[in-house]
Amino acid sequence: MKGIPMSTNNGIPMPRALDRAIEGELRRIIDTKTKPPGSLGRLEDIALQMGLIQRTAKPRIERPAMIVFAGDHGIAKEGVSSYPQEVTAQMVANFLAGGAAINALSRSVGMTLEVVDAGVATPIPIDHGYERLSLGLGTRNFAHERAMSRETALEGIARGGARVRHHASLGTNVIGFGEMGIANTSAAACLMSRLCDLPIDECVGRGTGLDERGLAHKREVLSKALALHRDEGDAIDTLATFGGFEIAMMTGAYLAAACAGMTILVDGFIATSALLVASKMAPDVLDYCVFAHASNETGHRRMLAHFGAAPLLQLELRLGEGTGAALALPILRAAVAFVDEMASFESAGVSNKAD
Amino acid sequence: MKGIPMSTNNGIPMPRALDRAIEGELRRIIDTKTKPPGSLGRLEDIALQMGLIQRTAKPRIERPAMIVFAGDHGIAKEGVSSYPQEVTAQMVANFLAGGAAINALSRSVGMTLEVVDAGVATPIPIDHGYERLSLGLGTRNFAHERAMSRETALEGIARGGARVRHHASLGTNVIGFGEMGIANTSAAACLMSRLCDLPIDECVGRGTGLDERGLAHKREVLSKALALHRDEGDAIDTLATFGGFEIAMMTGAYLAAACAGMTILVDGFIATSALLVASKMAPDVLDYCVFAHASNETGHRRMLAHFGAAPLLQLELRLGEGTGAALALPILRAAVAFVDEMASFESAGVSNKAD
Repeated sequence: MKGIPMSTNNGIPMPRALDRAIEGELRRIIDTKTKPPGSLGRLEDIALQMGLIQRTAKPRIERPAMIVFAGDHGIAKEGVSSYPQEVTAQMVANFLAGGAAINALSRSVGMTLEVVDAGVATPIPIDHGYERLSLGLGTRNFAHERAMSRETALEGIARGGARVRHHASLGTNVIGFGEMGIANTSAAACLMSRLCDLPIDECVGRGTGLDERGLAHKREVLSKALALHRDEGDAIDTLATFGGFEIAMMTGAYLAAACAGMTILVDGFIATSALLVASKMAPDVLDYCVFAHASNETGHRRMLAHFGAAPLLQLELRLGEGTGAALALPILRAAVAFVDEMASFESAGVSNKAD
Repeated sequence: MKGIPMSTNNGIPMPRALDRAIEGELRRIIDTKTKPPGSLGRLEDIALQMGLIQRTAKPRIERPAMIVFAGDHGIAKEGVSSYPQEVTAQMVANFLAGGAAINALSRSVGMTLEVVDAGVATPIPIDHGYERLSLGLGTRNFAHERAMSRETALEGIARGGARVRHHASLGTNVIGFGEMGIANTSAAACLMSRLCDLPIDECVGRGTGLDERGLAHKREVLSKALALHRDEGDAIDTLATFGGFEIAMMTGAYLAAACAGMTILVDGFIATSALLVASKMAPDVLDYCVFAHASNETGHRRMLAHFGAAPLLQLELRLGEGTGAALALPILRAAVAFVDEMASFESAGVSNKAD
């Protein structure tokens, strides 16, 4: 790696594909542990991936962190969510007070949690633990105009990346990204439709719990919005047109985390939509990703299929906030533990296969 | 519960169905947490189940424990495993030295691990941490005769139950059972075939890694054995005919754990075969069970379907030892954490649904 200049895209540092030099050594270590070959299933895949990312036969988990990016969406004005827009700020206050699901789950699994104001519409008078990186008081309504300018999208990518580099400087080598933003399943569905080239009906779900009528309305609104914004350019333009401030920051966060050699836990529908943007900019970002779970939000499984991803967990979650990513951390811990702590057939004096 | 005499089966205390008196209160608590109703998916089901088991709106996990029961099988003489019989004792020594997968995984998730000699063929000169409850130096070969007498099976059930009561006395309220025993997938496949009334071919898998020829031989051996032992009586007789000492003890362990009001993490193919026996004796034992994972051993998914069970994890494990059960513990921790720590819409001042 040293000496090779890092490539950039629009001035943003781009991750490299994994160096597979130690793959053979890692596979040999995994296969000589006291167990039938392959019998630890997905744990073996994760151990291999983390070893390659960290370039070591002894991968470790250091200061695992969860960043929740919050932002508001102009499209909320179209009545595409079951909840009013002020819930974004109320839930951010709940995060900061420690009372949301992601607080309980990140504590439970031992992850440092940080909440970022990517662009919430309502100012929140709490300083402690709230990173103020706001790009504005919510995006514009993409039913009528682009959600943000290309310049703002790029600024969001830069700010999200900078935040991840801060965590890298503190030692974090495993990270997850969560989000909060009323109406952000609408933004994610449009990004998915455009970037995966799929009909909008395959991408739209009930979000926080729309009924049939609400779902039909959401489909109609998004279908019209996609028709309005036809000529777009690259993935950054698509992000600017439909995305949210939190999605822009997550895009930058993925790219920076991969550049920093972190293992990235990919959460649900919104988080994966940001990865769609990031992977269009730099496909190698995917080498650093562990798809944590399949959400129950319609469209997420289809999005995972786009990546050819087999998620670790299928627990029927549909909450976002990073909850699915947090729940997968103990599986990474177990993968690291078996590589580090298990004896080999030789060291334990256990007979290998008879055949 | 007080005042109602506990029922017994062959002198063994039988668990009761859950008291659902607080189900409404639990559901209300879960549904008013700051999240869309149902959005925590399986975590909500587990929180409800643990609340009902513990008869409290604040379920907790106390001193989670994993007991690995080890035993040898006479059927190993028929060449039904890839590994020689002495591997059972070698792996037990590996457990006691801390070098096996279940050591690494139970440490990783914070579970107390205990290893029980249910009937290993080779004595192991280690005392520390080895519970000597042996029923003999391996079972008889059920290709020719019953694996053990009915009396021995009942003694195994009693000893497994007593061990669980010991852990209950130390405060354990969540428990998992693992096993080690070369050829024990053969015992489990025959138990499954007889107790689920399924053709043996649907129940036989590759175990620790048989090739096609080995698999065909295993099928033939087990098919003949099932034909030999036709007239059996109850589930205890079936256990005596085909089971292992470790399977008998696990059967008693499930029943005693349910009687003690523990939440039980059900591991893979062998562990679930013991639950087949236990649930024939007392169907209510299932109220206390969380099916931790779907093993890649052929037959396990079919066994889970018999119970109508949707396992928490599908990580392509096929190792046994309790590894799948251990990996599910963090999900229980997360379930308990969200109920205990999350704010309600009211307490957090978050607006509920618009509709």
